[in-house]
Amino acid sequence: MDQQLKRVVGTVKCEKGMLKSIEESSLHKIAKPDSIAFYGASSRASTMGSIIMTSLLDSGFKGAIYPVHPTEKTIKGLLVYQNVEELPEVPDLVIIVLPTKIVCSTLEACGKMGIKQAIIISGGFKEVGGDGIKLEKQLISISQTYGIRVLGPNCLGITNTHHHLNSTPFPIEGSPGAIGLVSQSGSFVTQMLNYLSRLELGFSTAFSVGNEADLDMVDCMEYLAACPETKVIALYIEGIKRGEAFIKAAKSISTKKPIVAFYVGGSDSGRKAAFSHTGALSGPDQLYDGMFRQCGVIRAHSITQLFDYCWGLIEMPEPTGNRIVIQTHSGGPGASAADACGRADLDLPTLAEDTLEKLTAFLPQTASAANPVDLTFTRDIKQFLFEIPEVLLQDKNTDILLIYLLLPEETFKSRMMNDGFSEKEAEKKIVEMIDVGAPIFAALKEKYGKPVVGFTYRSLQEKMVHKMINLGIPVYQDPTRAVNAIRGVVDYYELKNGLEKE
Amino acid sequence: MDQQLKRVVGTVKCEKGMLKSIEESSLHKIAKPDSIAFYGASSRASTMGSIIMTSLLDSGFKGAIYPVHPTEKTIKGLLVYQNVEELPEVPDLVIIVLPTKIVCSTLEACGKMGIKQAIIISGGFKEVGGDGIKLEKQLISISQTYGIRVLGPNCLGITNTHHHLNSTPFPIEGSPGAIGLVSQSGSFVTQMLNYLSRLELGFSTAFSVGNEADLDMVDCMEYLAACPETKVIALYIEGIKRGEAFIKAAKSISTKKPIVAFYVGGSDSGRKAAFSHTGALSGPDQLYDGMFRQCGVIRAHSITQLFDYCWGLIEMPEPTGNRIVIQTHSGGPGASAADACGRADLDLPTLAEDTLEKLTAFLPQTASAANPVDLTFTRDIKQFLFEIPEVLLQDKNTDILLIYLLLPEETFKSRMMNDGFSEKEAEKKIVEMIDVGAPIFAALKEKYGKPVVGFTYRSLQEKMVHKMINLGIPVYQDPTRAVNAIRGVVDYYELKNGLEKE
Repeated sequence: MDQQLKRVVGTVKCEKGMLKSIEESSLHKIAKPDSIAFYGASSRASTMGSIIMTSLLDSGFKGAIYPVHPTEKTIKGLLVYQNVEELPEVPDLVIIVLPTKIVCSTLEACGKMGIKQAIIISGGFKEVGGDGIKLEKQLISISQTYGIRVLGPNCLGITNTHHHLNSTPFPIEGSPGAIGLVSQSGSFVTQMLNYLSRLELGFSTAFSVGNEADLDMVDCMEYLAACPETKVIALYIEGIKRGEAFIKAAKSISTKKPIVAFYVGGSDSGRKAAFSHTGALSGPDQLYDGMFRQCGVIRAHSITQLFDYCWGLIEMPEPTGNRIVIQTHSGGPGASAADACGRADLDLPTLAEDTLEKLTAFLPQTASAANPVDLTFTRDIKQFLFEIPEVLLQDKNTDILLIYLLLPEETFKSRMMNDGFSEKEAEKKIVEMIDVGAPIFAALKEKYGKPVVGFTYRSLQEKMVHKMINLGIPVYQDPTRAVNAIRGVVDYYELKNGLEKE
Repeated sequence: MDQQLKRVVGTVKCEKGMLKSIEESSLHKIAKPDSIAFYGASSRASTMGSIIMTSLLDSGFKGAIYPVHPTEKTIKGLLVYQNVEELPEVPDLVIIVLPTKIVCSTLEACGKMGIKQAIIISGGFKEVGGDGIKLEKQLISISQTYGIRVLGPNCLGITNTHHHLNSTPFPIEGSPGAIGLVSQSGSFVTQMLNYLSRLELGFSTAFSVGNEADLDMVDCMEYLAACPETKVIALYIEGIKRGEAFIKAAKSISTKKPIVAFYVGGSDSGRKAAFSHTGALSGPDQLYDGMFRQCGVIRAHSITQLFDYCWGLIEMPEPTGNRIVIQTHSGGPGASAADACGRADLDLPTLAEDTLEKLTAFLPQTASAANPVDLTFTRDIKQFLFEIPEVLLQDKNTDILLIYLLLPEETFKSRMMNDGFSEKEAEKKIVEMIDVGAPIFAALKEKYGKPVVGFTYRSLQEKMVHKMINLGIPVYQDPTRAVNAIRGVVDYYELKNGLEKE
């Protein structure tokens, strides 16, 4: 946890082309409110409003929460106000989870009261067509009349893990992280927390933008660009509303902070589903492809790949090139990784003469010092994790180390016991290997300033690998995923450096 | 476990074009020996030989094991024989894990003794070039002189989970399964057991063929085609030795049992790595692509995809077409799945009129009855898991149901407690939901004879989803993976039906 927070802290400063400070953003008081009025919670625990109120309370939000309800007296121990005029202060934010037909009148009441920020979770607007379109126009008009900035409608609002704010129906899992998400699907704001926590990743702030009646994806991107806790910006896109503004913002941001986008509107089926989901009008796949490249945005082709790329961009230093050295003790995983590199157009250089000399001390007769470096079999974990990787990272022909990690502690333990160690001694040696060994291995990345990336087919929850992940080594569950993530990182820096020259 | 065994039992009968019975295969006594002579184990527990001997004993092998060693008296409690002539019987199989230079003489001694089957794990032959090539020729000559069928050298032999035989350095994890593997990498025979067990999958028999000096991939495919425990054949290929024999065997087998292949020799880097690994001579990617298609073999592009396809082919009945209906309660995952279908050229049909009528009873106002069917929010798990899927499977326009599964029991539990249930009551209801609900859901596949496929971003170890997996529903950790697996299954039956008409 601490390690992760450490990695997150103080990374990106505001620079020209971005907001001067996060306070300038219209989203500032939506993402970091001090007080919230809440419509839609009641004593009926099973409504969406009540579920979201529970999330809000469970997230450990530090500010004041004012439930508003015409008949309830208290909800979850909080005093209920019959209407917004009764509140003891003008809250920074109102969250509305009401039936569609009373959303506009409620927003108007809040506007009259002077509330300037709203999250509207209720659906039934533009995305359902017909009268919904009219209702959304009315909503926009109220927002403009009273100067209320609105996130939504038809969204799940925000998960700001650093500020203990969660307006989504699922609880926060895992620790605060460094991925800033802007999503045209609320699901990915709320339903990826479990997935990310298993990788020791997490959101800095995640925005569900819904129908983007007022604040949209571009506003959120600008916020995240200025957000010190955000190291990489992830986008889930069904269709971009303000194309020119998107390009301008993305171009400016991507030279400072990487942006990765998963766009689903490019296929015919995806386009139709997107339209029925948020009423988004999506464009042809190739158009988006070109636009992304033009403004330095890396394109992912699945949610898994979106976060694979984010992980790589958070953890890898800028590579000096695209020459990969693969270290393995198993030929098949090595060859699979090599094949993936070939398909991803990443080079597998021949190692330098002095590297080959240094390696001879470590390699058994059956091993190969070609690239992949295949030890075929090694019992000396220190050689495998420290000495050989160090030799490979020192090689002037290599830019990136990709290493196969197969470290099941149960197997090590039983082998040590076969070697004559008692169970206690074996366990002690394994704890030592993890506590001492993982940091030495993980430190190689900083020592040589080169990306170190792992892959395994085992669970990432196994202790040794999980410790490495915790210390900043991305470990992917297939060499193809690892190689594609490296490709994404190499692409990002190529595009970034190109844009900087423009 | 029982469920899985049940799924495995009595599935494929031998038909023309394949071996009449498994006993005809030269591999029969290698895969199912009654007695084994073992060279290479000693009191030094850390050698490869000793580690493999441990695996052999730990796997619960029922037959006799005779360690042979010039100086040891007992190894792991077994009586040691100084040389092979002293054995009390001619064993079915000899396993050799010795230094390269004494392998040939050992094999010759075994041949003189009348042993007819050998697994040679030792490396240092063709794959290292130079003298290794000569040594391998010598080995082949001995094998021919004495009529010994050899698996290897430079391999890890066999994992036959049903026969409790494991000659690899890692222990068997998980239960016996239905995937027959032939691998030009030992790693995938031994290091995927953990991965597969997490999916409730497993190997029937997995062969590591090594350098294929004698028995090769084609022999193993023929064995697996006749093996009653094998439902699908998986291949890890670096290069095919006998092209014509492969095509003939694959064509004949694939009309009876699906074959999935992951080929890494197609890229320049993959080709070089493969050559350095097993000395395999691989061919251009497109040539293999065409060959696979010609003989009904489905091609995977990573190890993960290889087993994704196997899973689908084991669990899905033959689809009546390629029309997918997607059920979700979250727009983003639904749109992602729809986009993946579009890219995989799978159709998303409009639902029939009567389906739409039936659905109106279940869908809230914000929901969409287009395809994806998006409930946006549902609290009634019975509707989500039984009633709505049933309506969708009844639709004459749909061939396959793809469903988003988000069923975290902790969240359900806390929501029930919010609804006023005690913790005990909530836990009881969840156990009921899993024990009663999962089988009803899983039974829909058989009831309608249509594939039912799930996807989730959460851990597959969560109880509800794991129970479904155990009952035969494949659940993939990304819609893209689910859709690609469906594509693989649709492709297989198209190719199979085409071949049958030839």
